[in-house]
Amino acid sequence: MTKPPRLTKRIAAEGLGSFFLFATVIGSGIMAANLSGGNDAVALLGNTLATGAMLFVLITMFGPVSGAHMNPAVSLIAVARGDLNGTDAAAYIAAQLTFGILGAWAAHLMFDLPTLQLSVKARTGLGQWMGEAIATFGLILTILGTVRHRPNWIPATVALYITAAYWFTSSTSFANPAITVARSLSNTFAGIAPDDVPMFVLAQLVGAALGAITGKAVFD
Amino acid sequence: MTKPPRLTKRIAAEGLGSFFLFATVIGSGIMAANLSGGNDAVALLGNTLATGAMLFVLITMFGPVSGAHMNPAVSLIAVARGDLNGTDAAAYIAAQLTFGILGAWAAHLMFDLPTLQLSVKARTGLGQWMGEAIATFGLILTILGTVRHRPNWIPATVALYITAAYWFTSSTSFANPAITVARSLSNTFAGIAPDDVPMFVLAQLVGAALGAITGKAVFD
Amino acid sequence: MTKPPRLTKRIAAEGLGSFFLFATVIGSGIMAANLSGGNDAVALLGNTLATGAMLFVLITMFGPVSGAHMNPAVSLIAVARGDLNGTDAAAYIAAQLTFGILGAWAAHLMFDLPTLQLSVKARTGLGQWMGEAIATFGLILTILGTVRHRPNWIPATVALYITAAYWFTSSTSFANPAITVARSLSNTFAGIAPDDVPMFVLAQLVGAALGAITGKAVFD
Amino acid sequence: MTKPPRLTKRIAAEGLGSFFLFATVIGSGIMAANLSGGNDAVALLGNTLATGAMLFVLITMFGPVSGAHMNPAVSLIAVARGDLNGTDAAAYIAAQLTFGILGAWAAHLMFDLPTLQLSVKARTGLGQWMGEAIATFGLILTILGTVRHRPNWIPATVALYITAAYWFTSSTSFANPAITVARSLSNTFAGIAPDDVPMFVLAQLVGAALGAITGKAVFD
Repeated sequence: MTKPPRLTKRIAAEGLGSFFLFATVIGSGIMAANLSGGNDAVALLGNTLATGAMLFVLITMFGPVSGAHMNPAVSLIAVARGDLNGTDAAAYIAAQLTFGILGAWAAHLMFDLPTLQLSVKARTGLGQWMGEAIATFGLILTILGTVRHRPNWIPATVALYITAAYWFTSSTSFANPAITVARSLSNTFAGIAPDDVPMFVLAQLVGAALGAITGKAVFD
Repeated sequence: MTKPPRLTKRIAAEGLGSFFLFATVIGSGIMAANLSGGNDAVALLGNTLATGAMLFVLITMFGPVSGAHMNPAVSLIAVARGDLNGTDAAAYIAAQLTFGILGAWAAHLMFDLPTLQLSVKARTGLGQWMGEAIATFGLILTILGTVRHRPNWIPATVALYITAAYWFTSSTSFANPAITVARSLSNTFAGIAPDDVPMFVLAQLVGAALGAITGKAVFD
Repeated sequence: MTKPPRLTKRIAAEGLGSFFLFATVIGSGIMAANLSGGNDAVALLGNTLATGAMLFVLITMFGPVSGAHMNPAVSLIAVARGDLNGTDAAAYIAAQLTFGILGAWAAHLMFDLPTLQLSVKARTGLGQWMGEAIATFGLILTILGTVRHRPNWIPATVALYITAAYWFTSSTSFANPAITVARSLSNTFAGIAPDDVPMFVLAQLVGAALGAITGKAVFD
Repeated sequence: MTKPPRLTKRIAAEGLGSFFLFATVIGSGIMAANLSGGNDAVALLGNTLATGAMLFVLITMFGPVSGAHMNPAVSLIAVARGDLNGTDAAAYIAAQLTFGILGAWAAHLMFDLPTLQLSVKARTGLGQWMGEAIATFGLILTILGTVRHRPNWIPATVALYITAAYWFTSSTSFANPAITVARSLSNTFAGIAPDDVPMFVLAQLVGAALGAITGKAVFD
């Protein structure tokens, strides 16, 4: 309806959104693990609540600016659907990665941890890869279905989808290549060993592609 | 107002919805039990949060396509009220059962468990049957009342009704014949022994019928 | 705008609402205490989640029928403000008490407990009475402020107010004379000794009156 | 669109809002610590749930009256943006502090604790100051972005932002100079030693100013 915001504003929105999202995922994981006395279900409750709440907030305020992707898989699907051009997508993804990693480092600084870390937490195996594929499949489906039928509710559905996916997938649902990279740089509750990143990202991209195809068939 | 979507799209919506709903109920139960260190209240909190969140998402996106029943009791009441014809209902229920069971199996695969399982968890007795009847009675009432007075809020009321019903009924509220069957195929937190399925389903259908009659009297 | 529903429908709505609300408060308390292994904070989380969720559902569907008071203090304030006549209020309150107590008994039956019980849980003292007065003051203020400024959001604000009040008041916020009576008939997590009921009800009515006066000054 | 309410009503709204908000933050912290048996993650879940829920309620009902700032940092940014004059802001801040401290004392009285207390809980260090700056930066950004793009959703975004910030910042996100002062007067779960207040407030004001500048660039 109206002219889209300038690219600099959109990149700023992607950057700020990714900074806060990734700081929330990693920071709330640190807080939760610090306080939960070893009960990982309680820790995951805190981590989930914070992540879902922040997603709602960021998509509400940055959605009208940039779409609030904060996720290269989402930006790539937008390109495939013709909603975003390739140059803009490259800038989006660069901002997601750069500011997202800054968010991870900000979480470390806030909790008095070394800034530069590498995770040693193994996350691998067919079950978890299937988890990532299903998680990202569902995320793309959620976005396409909501945008098609109830676009105003996109902050609620994405936030609640990830809330559920933290629990129903064996991998706790990264569903985002940029956050997968950023989480490999954090040896904390949310971390993932760098060696395990490529298969997670591959599974996410496969899931995203299948989600786009399925969403087109059901919702378009 | 507008022509309803083609039957194939509606069946796809019922199938995808049931797949994700049942995978969430069973998968989040496995995750919660794995992490909670034996505190079943913490496990039920995670299971509840995931189920309620996913219901909101699925009803938001699939509601405008198929009604997002994902539950044979809901489809049967729709037939009784003249909102769905019998042939379509049979296709709906077949999709709910088939894709729902695939969702249960997907949960097993994601968590590296054997795909084919039978639950040995006894869920029986007058108290739990009364729980299922009350749970399903309230679910149908919630659907009829919301559709009548605030149709846009149906994703929120159904999600929050089930959130409450997981806690206030002794059976943790299955309230859905298809998920009862699927949960009998999962020897995990959410399971139910196959022998206990028929009485649960019977109680659900009795509750659903009473809910439809009461809803007609109060809301129509 | 439109003619209000017949009194019988409104009484049915108050009765059904109170049945489900009181069954939820008491039933989820039993479930939570059964599963929480003695960690009362975890139990209160489950009890809170279920109560808040159910309040949202009941007010959404019964609000347009009867106002969804489910609480004599709310009905009395409605009389004082000229929104409900005295005869109707008497019928409302009778339905709230009768069906609410049936809800308590249904919770006992579902959990295989004796139907008829009397609580022995002491809830008394200046701090808790102050808690009940503040809780009910805030509840009435919430209702008046929301009805005045954002009437569509009344299910959300009442549900979330009680969610908060379960935690910030020392009495866990009964804020409702009918539920106070019903809870005295349940020797479970949510119970209150019958001897302690009168002062709770008195504190609730004082808080409700102050809330009505304050709400009139700030919102009318 | 319409004439703003008289200053006395707006001050009453700020005062009542701050009373309930601060009573909730401190009271739910006491309740949570009393019941959680030393598991601070469970305690923080209860504290978070109550605070987020109450924020939604208060902003819904008092937002249309006074803006529902309940926070001197928010009032100062409103002055800087020309949305509030300096005299009104002084009255706002006085009401926030006075009634907020009354809310803290009410929490003590409800829980049978001495009214007058001073916290001995150390909250200091670069990490926590950075936490407060980031928390308040994000809060102001959330307010400006939501007001700009989806003004009706301001109760939800502020409530959910604070929900997330309780977990992702090392300081559990005070993000409010008035509540920082009030919490120094409570030697309970939510307390902060008086000596640590000035640096927290300074960090909050720095974060708020940066949030206002960033918000202007991205949203205006």
